[in-house]
Amino acid sequence: MWGIVQATGVAPKKIIIDCDPGIDDALALTLAHGSPALDILGITTVGGNVDLGHTTGNALRLREFLGFPGIPITAGSAGALLRTPVNAAGVHGEHGLGEARLPEATLPPAEGHAADFIIDTLRAAPGEVTLVAIGPLTNVALALLKEPRIVEWAREFAILGGSYTRGNHSPAAEFNIAADPEAAAIVFDAGWTVTMIGLDVSRQALAVGEVVDRMRTMGRLGADLLVPCVEFYGMVTATEGPAIHDACAIAYLIDPSLVTVDPAVVQVETAGRFTSGMTVTDFVLGDRAPNALVGTSLDVPRFWDLVLEVYEDVARRIGG
Amino acid sequence: MWGIVQATGVAPKKIIIDCDPGIDDALALTLAHGSPALDILGITTVGGNVDLGHTTGNALRLREFLGFPGIPITAGSAGALLRTPVNAAGVHGEHGLGEARLPEATLPPAEGHAADFIIDTLRAAPGEVTLVAIGPLTNVALALLKEPRIVEWAREFAILGGSYTRGNHSPAAEFNIAADPEAAAIVFDAGWTVTMIGLDVSRQALAVGEVVDRMRTMGRLGADLLVPCVEFYGMVTATEGPAIHDACAIAYLIDPSLVTVDPAVVQVETAGRFTSGMTVTDFVLGDRAPNALVGTSLDVPRFWDLVLEVYEDVARRIGG
Amino acid sequence: MWGIVQATGVAPKKIIIDCDPGIDDALALTLAHGSPALDILGITTVGGNVDLGHTTGNALRLREFLGFPGIPITAGSAGALLRTPVNAAGVHGEHGLGEARLPEATLPPAEGHAADFIIDTLRAAPGEVTLVAIGPLTNVALALLKEPRIVEWAREFAILGGSYTRGNHSPAAEFNIAADPEAAAIVFDAGWTVTMIGLDVSRQALAVGEVVDRMRTMGRLGADLLVPCVEFYGMVTATEGPAIHDACAIAYLIDPSLVTVDPAVVQVETAGRFTSGMTVTDFVLGDRAPNALVGTSLDVPRFWDLVLEVYEDVARRIGG
Amino acid sequence: MWGIVQATGVAPKKIIIDCDPGIDDALALTLAHGSPALDILGITTVGGNVDLGHTTGNALRLREFLGFPGIPITAGSAGALLRTPVNAAGVHGEHGLGEARLPEATLPPAEGHAADFIIDTLRAAPGEVTLVAIGPLTNVALALLKEPRIVEWAREFAILGGSYTRGNHSPAAEFNIAADPEAAAIVFDAGWTVTMIGLDVSRQALAVGEVVDRMRTMGRLGADLLVPCVEFYGMVTATEGPAIHDACAIAYLIDPSLVTVDPAVVQVETAGRFTSGMTVTDFVLGDRAPNALVGTSLDVPRFWDLVLEVYEDVARRIGG
Repeated sequence: MWGIVQATGVAPKKIIIDCDPGIDDALALTLAHGSPALDILGITTVGGNVDLGHTTGNALRLREFLGFPGIPITAGSAGALLRTPVNAAGVHGEHGLGEARLPEATLPPAEGHAADFIIDTLRAAPGEVTLVAIGPLTNVALALLKEPRIVEWAREFAILGGSYTRGNHSPAAEFNIAADPEAAAIVFDAGWTVTMIGLDVSRQALAVGEVVDRMRTMGRLGADLLVPCVEFYGMVTATEGPAIHDACAIAYLIDPSLVTVDPAVVQVETAGRFTSGMTVTDFVLGDRAPNALVGTSLDVPRFWDLVLEVYEDVARRIGG
Repeated sequence: MWGIVQATGVAPKKIIIDCDPGIDDALALTLAHGSPALDILGITTVGGNVDLGHTTGNALRLREFLGFPGIPITAGSAGALLRTPVNAAGVHGEHGLGEARLPEATLPPAEGHAADFIIDTLRAAPGEVTLVAIGPLTNVALALLKEPRIVEWAREFAILGGSYTRGNHSPAAEFNIAADPEAAAIVFDAGWTVTMIGLDVSRQALAVGEVVDRMRTMGRLGADLLVPCVEFYGMVTATEGPAIHDACAIAYLIDPSLVTVDPAVVQVETAGRFTSGMTVTDFVLGDRAPNALVGTSLDVPRFWDLVLEVYEDVARRIGG
Repeated sequence: MWGIVQATGVAPKKIIIDCDPGIDDALALTLAHGSPALDILGITTVGGNVDLGHTTGNALRLREFLGFPGIPITAGSAGALLRTPVNAAGVHGEHGLGEARLPEATLPPAEGHAADFIIDTLRAAPGEVTLVAIGPLTNVALALLKEPRIVEWAREFAILGGSYTRGNHSPAAEFNIAADPEAAAIVFDAGWTVTMIGLDVSRQALAVGEVVDRMRTMGRLGADLLVPCVEFYGMVTATEGPAIHDACAIAYLIDPSLVTVDPAVVQVETAGRFTSGMTVTDFVLGDRAPNALVGTSLDVPRFWDLVLEVYEDVARRIGG
Repeated sequence: MWGIVQATGVAPKKIIIDCDPGIDDALALTLAHGSPALDILGITTVGGNVDLGHTTGNALRLREFLGFPGIPITAGSAGALLRTPVNAAGVHGEHGLGEARLPEATLPPAEGHAADFIIDTLRAAPGEVTLVAIGPLTNVALALLKEPRIVEWAREFAILGGSYTRGNHSPAAEFNIAADPEAAAIVFDAGWTVTMIGLDVSRQALAVGEVVDRMRTMGRLGADLLVPCVEFYGMVTATEGPAIHDACAIAYLIDPSLVTVDPAVVQVETAGRFTSGMTVTDFVLGDRAPNALVGTSLDVPRFWDLVLEVYEDVARRIGG
């Protein structure tokens, strides 16, 4: 990968990652950090899988463990715009990283609010920076509410979230959207095109036995982060291996050819009794312009090739 | 089938069919009438695919064309309990039977309201009569509102409607449920077990080319009803052949082994902005009792064997 | 009143009373029975203030205590169309008539369902019969769902229910509407003109001390029914005397000049989180036709003159 | 007033005014500016009566016309958090100040967003600054979303908005709340006590003929601002004089004894079909802590004494 990128001379994509680490967020951040195709300008955190204190704390720990101390981490919203906070601590563990216990961080987060970091960074380089959100969309919605022009300034906007078939937080809704449906509605209705990598894609990204076996060979990265994360995650999910959701959105940004996307009109249900947070996805556009590109399939073998190759590269740098 | 039933000496199931013919209702009524496994006690009609005048008129025409003049047909509700009527005339044709033009009926419908026919028939033989609804659930809901004990009196209750993945009236909702979500909510919350044969099953029942070819050999039944129905239906749907939805519920009642069903909790969304009429289906019961048996797969070859064999038998009786 | 009616030779109004006795229902039935201006064709009961068993039982007891054994009483719906039943037993006492303990009834209710009684009675004399509902509107809604033409057949339709300012079941909603908002929505949207005598009027009909004093002089009627009802009711309400809501609707039918009514568009909220059951009343019609005549003020002295005069007449007949 | 304040040596209240001028906003700003009891730290603007461009422009014009060039004016949100913008240009005129035509402003607004001005100003002096909002609550909600601690930092928070009886934007809802119900819900649920001066109070503040006559004597202030505002406003309202809503909230802050307030639980309806934006107000607290002090009556004579005395003082300073 590295070699290819260097050889073709393509400049890496500048990205901001809004996240709520979270086990699969940690795996996604490792992928984003390790890939030469991406240049992380900043990380912003939001309450989601666990509360904001833990998601921010985990981001800070990961920054030092993985070794990118120069990238700013800015905390944002603790909970949804209008709703009582929910979390997924049952899935991610009380601290959010399963059984992984990374050392305390020594560096603090940046001053200010995540929404302002997003606004200021996009404003500073219109058309150049990609925004990806892999947690609830509260920070992105707040940024849009304060500064609607980020829609024009962002080069590209992608999320890990939603589903056009069935959910995981409820039969109808995926967790990131269900955690703040009003924020998601603001984001999908903002006038840009949302690349929605949802459960329909990410449920194909299962860390099956042979994937975990290969992680076991990855020194400290494997032993201290990847394996305890994935094993904890696998214990609480009921499939042949846990789905590494968030990494799918990062993988798509690294290599869009990994995911098939189709144009659609996506509307977020905010009013339902049983369907709140559903991403109602209509592929039949009629005369409507699509507001989303929705991921429909994943090239699973090439996905794991990419992910594990990058992880091995990161592992070499970390050593152990 | 006839032979088997006779050989085993099993008495046919007594059923009431609540319907809104409608192309696939016509195909379902033909199947129910022709099968020796079923004994139709009465047909009730509801506004749905087309308005009540046409659905009742079509039921009356089918009764004489197919030849069961002694079975009462009772009209019911013209529209939903609370909502503005919708219809699917675009799919079923202005008159509801596509290009089929059956002769005017000479016999009138029965007196009274469909809901009362359902109540009275179930009350008269508690535990003996199966109720199947293959249109919007307005009549059944009205019957439940007037006489909640039909829940105990019905031997079995099945519907063609709903979906646990995606809809056809909207991305979230199937037509029969979306046409009267409040009625559907009443029906699913009534305390009985609803056998829900939904789009997940019926979308597998495609009248592909070889099916239609066989229908062409069926004399007047084929020429005057089956073929013009299916061809019209096929023109307006975008798959390899039209899905003969309603016939799946009848086929299930004839031979339950054709459809795999799983217990679930089904809740009907009535409040959503984009999800109204969705049958939110949770297969993870926890400590909840299921209120539904939800069809998840269809034995397609055996389904068509059954349907076409019965049709051929009916065709022989009609002649032509 | 009696004298005037006789003198003018006006035939009494034929009415059906749909009710949920209930203290103020009992006072309203006493008024309706005693007034020569009204001819009660039948009484129908609905679950509301207390459950259907008690409301029907109380109607039966009142029939014999007050002495109109020939008027049929038909039970209807036990609870709301879609909602979990609520009641107001805290206001009306466990049995529904406060401290009043009338003798067991000896005559049974009529066969059939209240909705059918309403339909059949209105159909039998189109344009002649007034329908008044002083409980939740479930029975009336069911009648409309089964037979929409009752809208044309009814001479007049009035309710005790709703409010255009504040509620009593919640800050936004009056009890009769809040008990079944969907039924109320069906009733207000049915195409007839609803005379809505609501809290804005009935809160003016307070049984203050001197009213109760006069009831104490009314023999068995006072001692066994009126006084124990009103005193219990007064104990649980926080004004200078309890509001005799339901009697206001009957008084209006006896003498419309007692209540000022204004045309309005009334829409029933069914979807609110805090406003479900509110009768949203717009007196500014613009180019909309009104669907309601809404009571805005009561001639309190003349109201009590009428009510107490009729009660005294009934008391004389009952004796004691 | 000035004399009294000086005599008692009470320091003026520091306030931030969030507004959407708007005719009554202009009258409120004039009152706030002229009263020695208030010290305006800043004005923030929001889209509401007219769009954000006009509300901000009007605030800038008023600043120079009234003569407080040193007070910063910061623009905020153009529209509601989630809803399509509404306005009341029909009531306030296309430009928002009726027939008044103030000279173009020469000074620009401050940099930054209103929400940040509110946060920063409250943070800088915890416990010292009063926040009053007399337009839709979008800016205040955004400030709360970004920095929930403003709830602790604000000395007091008051609004002009809501109603516990009937609305003006709809039968159920007052304009400021109806314009952004979700923002209002965030504001009322934030954990502070909202002093709600609503229509129940402000409808008593009618600029009747003698009030307008006195305004006519006020030189340029009267001729260029007050009279053309009030006359335009009066043309489009149907009472004996227009209600000067926003000035009531300012008057309350100047002299709380002008308004009777009662503790209540206020919940903002966001889900209703006909009641969206209603401030559902329950004065029966039970064991709930109140979240609001709701104005229930206005001392009308003393209100006008205060307002007109201050206006005369401002008029003298402006001259003409």
